Amino acid sequence: MIEHSNELDRAFHALADATRRGILDRLSRGIASVSELAKPYASSLAAIQQHVQVLEASGLIVTEKRGRTRECRISSAAVLRVECWLSERRQLWEDRFDQLEKLVEGEENPVDSNAER
Amino acid sequence: MIEHSNELDRAFHALADATRRGILDRLSRGIASVSELAKPYASSLAAIQQHVQVLEASGLIVTEKRGRTRECRISSAAVLRVECWLSERRQLWEDRFDQLEKLVEGEENPVDSNAER
Repeated sequence: MIEHSNELDRAFHALADATRRGILDRLSRGIASVSELAKPYASSLAAIQQHVQVLEASGLIVTEKRGRTRECRISSAAVLRVECWLSERRQLWEDRFDQLEKLVEGEENPVDSNAER
Repeated sequence: MIEHSNELDRAFHALADATRRGILDRLSRGIASVSELAKPYASSLAAIQQHVQVLEASGLIVTEKRGRTRECRISSAAVLRVECWLSERRQLWEDRFDQLEKLVEGEENPVDSNAER
């Protein structure tokens, strides 16, 4: 695979976990510190820190140390790259499917096309 | 997580592998049998069959037995659901970011807003 395979591997791996998706979900509503991200979870702060590290390594989030806290935010460009990978494949398939459908319709209704002449 | 967490887990896990993404890539250009999908790979047919099973379990592709071959095709609805999960979060974040930017601009240029009065 040419297309930044490792980047996509890491992004999709990061997304394949409900807690990490929950963290992204929270960050979609604004910047948060790791301890703010940990609040809704029964898991330890260390466990949430590990999830944050996986998300950061995937590029989907960016973190920055501010004094004693680490601020986290979504990298919308990285999320968009993953979205685009998916939408390009889906659209290719849908275009192909539309073409086939038109072809089949043409074969099924040859009389209609004659009637229009 | 309320939103079909298992479905998303399976879809993102399926996508976190370059061979499986290669299979999706091939299927975006049209229906293919498992042996057609295996052609570009050095892996055994059995290994490709396993990848196809992971993709099918995730819902991202649909397979159908036709005589002695198994035809595979993309489920564009399933791909779209994954895309939407991502784009909803990204858009929420971008909207919030735009709001913050406007707020900061307003604070930085209070004279301009007075000048317009």
